[in-house]
Amino acid sequence: MAKPNAFYAQSGGVTAVINASACGVIETARQHRDKIGKVYAGRNGIIGALTEELIDTSRESAKSIRGLRFTPSGAFGSCRYKLRSFEENEREYRRLMEVFAAHDIRYFFYNGGGDSQDTAHKVSQLGVTLGYAVTCIGIPKTVDNDLPFTDCCPGFGSVAKYVAISTREAALDVASMCETSTKVFILEVMGRHAGWIAAAAGLAQDQPGDPPHIILLPEVPFVERKFLRKVKRTVSKCGYCVVVVSEGAQYANGTFVADVGRKDAFGHTQLGGVAPTIANLIHTRLGYKYHWAVADYLQRAARHIASATDVEQAYAMGEAAVKFALAGKNAIMPIVVRKSDKPYRWTVGEVKLSKVANVERKMPKSYISADGFGITAKARRYLAPLIVGEDHPPYVGGLPQYVKLKNQLVAKKLKPFEV
Amino acid sequence: MAKPNAFYAQSGGVTAVINASACGVIETARQHRDKIGKVYAGRNGIIGALTEELIDTSRESAKSIRGLRFTPSGAFGSCRYKLRSFEENEREYRRLMEVFAAHDIRYFFYNGGGDSQDTAHKVSQLGVTLGYAVTCIGIPKTVDNDLPFTDCCPGFGSVAKYVAISTREAALDVASMCETSTKVFILEVMGRHAGWIAAAAGLAQDQPGDPPHIILLPEVPFVERKFLRKVKRTVSKCGYCVVVVSEGAQYANGTFVADVGRKDAFGHTQLGGVAPTIANLIHTRLGYKYHWAVADYLQRAARHIASATDVEQAYAMGEAAVKFALAGKNAIMPIVVRKSDKPYRWTVGEVKLSKVANVERKMPKSYISADGFGITAKARRYLAPLIVGEDHPPYVGGLPQYVKLKNQLVAKKLKPFEV
Repeated sequence: MAKPNAFYAQSGGVTAVINASACGVIETARQHRDKIGKVYAGRNGIIGALTEELIDTSRESAKSIRGLRFTPSGAFGSCRYKLRSFEENEREYRRLMEVFAAHDIRYFFYNGGGDSQDTAHKVSQLGVTLGYAVTCIGIPKTVDNDLPFTDCCPGFGSVAKYVAISTREAALDVASMCETSTKVFILEVMGRHAGWIAAAAGLAQDQPGDPPHIILLPEVPFVERKFLRKVKRTVSKCGYCVVVVSEGAQYANGTFVADVGRKDAFGHTQLGGVAPTIANLIHTRLGYKYHWAVADYLQRAARHIASATDVEQAYAMGEAAVKFALAGKNAIMPIVVRKSDKPYRWTVGEVKLSKVANVERKMPKSYISADGFGITAKARRYLAPLIVGEDHPPYVGGLPQYVKLKNQLVAKKLKPFEV
Repeated sequence: MAKPNAFYAQSGGVTAVINASACGVIETARQHRDKIGKVYAGRNGIIGALTEELIDTSRESAKSIRGLRFTPSGAFGSCRYKLRSFEENEREYRRLMEVFAAHDIRYFFYNGGGDSQDTAHKVSQLGVTLGYAVTCIGIPKTVDNDLPFTDCCPGFGSVAKYVAISTREAALDVASMCETSTKVFILEVMGRHAGWIAAAAGLAQDQPGDPPHIILLPEVPFVERKFLRKVKRTVSKCGYCVVVVSEGAQYANGTFVADVGRKDAFGHTQLGGVAPTIANLIHTRLGYKYHWAVADYLQRAARHIASATDVEQAYAMGEAAVKFALAGKNAIMPIVVRKSDKPYRWTVGEVKLSKVANVERKMPKSYISADGFGITAKARRYLAPLIVGEDHPPYVGGLPQYVKLKNQLVAKKLKPFEV
């Protein structure tokens, strides 16, 4: 008799290790063919479930699936698409149920951030609301590290490592040239609401006083005068100054620093980028020569320098999701539980989706230094283990050999559906 | 009897592998203590020679010197400082001679780009002009790959590798999200006058049609209409478009694309950045959602992903410089001579400094595709070997352990000198 199938989807912004979670799901499901039939992946995330575009992962070789462990971004496509509440949008939930029923899908694995866990929670209630029972397990993912309960979010450790290494490297560059060239270097990193990623740049320091000299977090209101004073003092003392700034850095009134409110000749709002804005401020007020970088997608796609700890945890979350489902658990999300900082030990735990949904985890105040421009020893103790270990992808001709899946779709059985 | 000493200086913008050349110089000199006394390094480049700030590298352990091989940027400091002609600035040449004489320096190794080779050439003539003979060997270095005669410049291979890998990774990110999110991604890379670095992004392609879909080179005049048509066509066909742009991209009249000629509210010229400028153009004309990144110093400092070929060549150039000097050669620069593309074989050659000085090597027309937006098979054949091989630095706690030298200065013997 055919075994019930599973559905897996990637949701929201992708990371260097979300495919490692996919690898964990698919490899673990393949080890339990007596209980799970096929794993279908949503093409472009949950949209694929609505449009019945289901990728048949059974068509992929064991080698390709293994390759997901070292391939960044979303191998099946992801999307930014939030299902509204059941009351507001019953139509979509009914459609999901139809697609699941048509393809005998009884397991739903949803790999994403806070919004996605909310969706997973709603889908877990389809049995009650629409009479079609499906086992729902969320799989945590976000570079922003803002999911509650889990010690950290798969995806964060790798972006943290990228930012810490890039900061250390660029700082050496600036230090060696500062006598006659650039005095201030500004690196803009992700983090619209929380400063986790910028904070990780602090790991670049070996000794107090090492760069980065200033970290600008969204949690600490940006005060120009105070900032400029610190820049000036740092250049006087060290000869140069390295600043790492969250894209979400903001003034006390909540206005983003990047939102300079200027219009160009065509009346369009001037391009943001908090790094160039800060650079301009420094140049205007202090006259220093500057350079700035905006890492943007490079930081979350940089699988070549992923954290081995992060890769392992991402895989473990995917693996645990399947094992939990097979153990009859429902409406939960596996989490990373820290057992000790040093040596770093962790294990897999679980939390109810109903608790996770739409709760944002902020950086604790105790992680931010007194002057607001750095991180504390406590933050360091938390962050340090997350970037440990290298997990180099295979290289051919100097380039990482990331896998490309066939991504063959299953034949549709239903009428088209307008998303 | 004391042996004559050597002087080594780093010049101009630093790279991920310039210290590997320093390592080659110092290690090779240490193997010939019968002929070379100490190697003094200029603090902040040639400025250190003028101000008599000489770093005594003999104070550094063999382990530290070995560590230079995997440490990016300029370990002794570099500078942007060009010596003018002897006629214009005899004072500086006389000072160099005094410092060299005071510290019994008879070997001069100058590690830099075109301007630096010009300086090295001038210094090589001090024997004739001022009666103080010094053996002068230039050591090639530049991420811009614009030195003549040498097959490539140490520093370029690593930035090429960084750009190719980053493009490949970011492209996977964009591809997986393009259904509902970013359609166009723009990566700005270095290259003010020549497109070598942007061209290297083309190595990210496995198959024709793979990203990057568009490369904007300074060598090809930027034509908005043509560019926008290509962007639109690419998005229609592939669902997304990846653009890599040289900072030096320019219009037919020589105006930089980044020079938008706008002023902000304070009357300051608006910050450039060709990536945001291009992004704005695309958004305004085509309405696509975009993201952009500016790699800036990250690209030339990224020792964590350096090309093993580049590291080897950088070391070999430093080593050859000392060997040439000991063989009684003067006023030359070691170069990389390519013996074959596939398999890639190279050897060390030499060229007279008088020939190198101030000659800029442009990218051949035959390397640029017919439509001007890509590279040819010939370019690929040239570029591909330069990024081959990984040369991972040692890691502790997830971070590369770059060396920090003591950089102890030799006691001054002369009166101060105003630079």
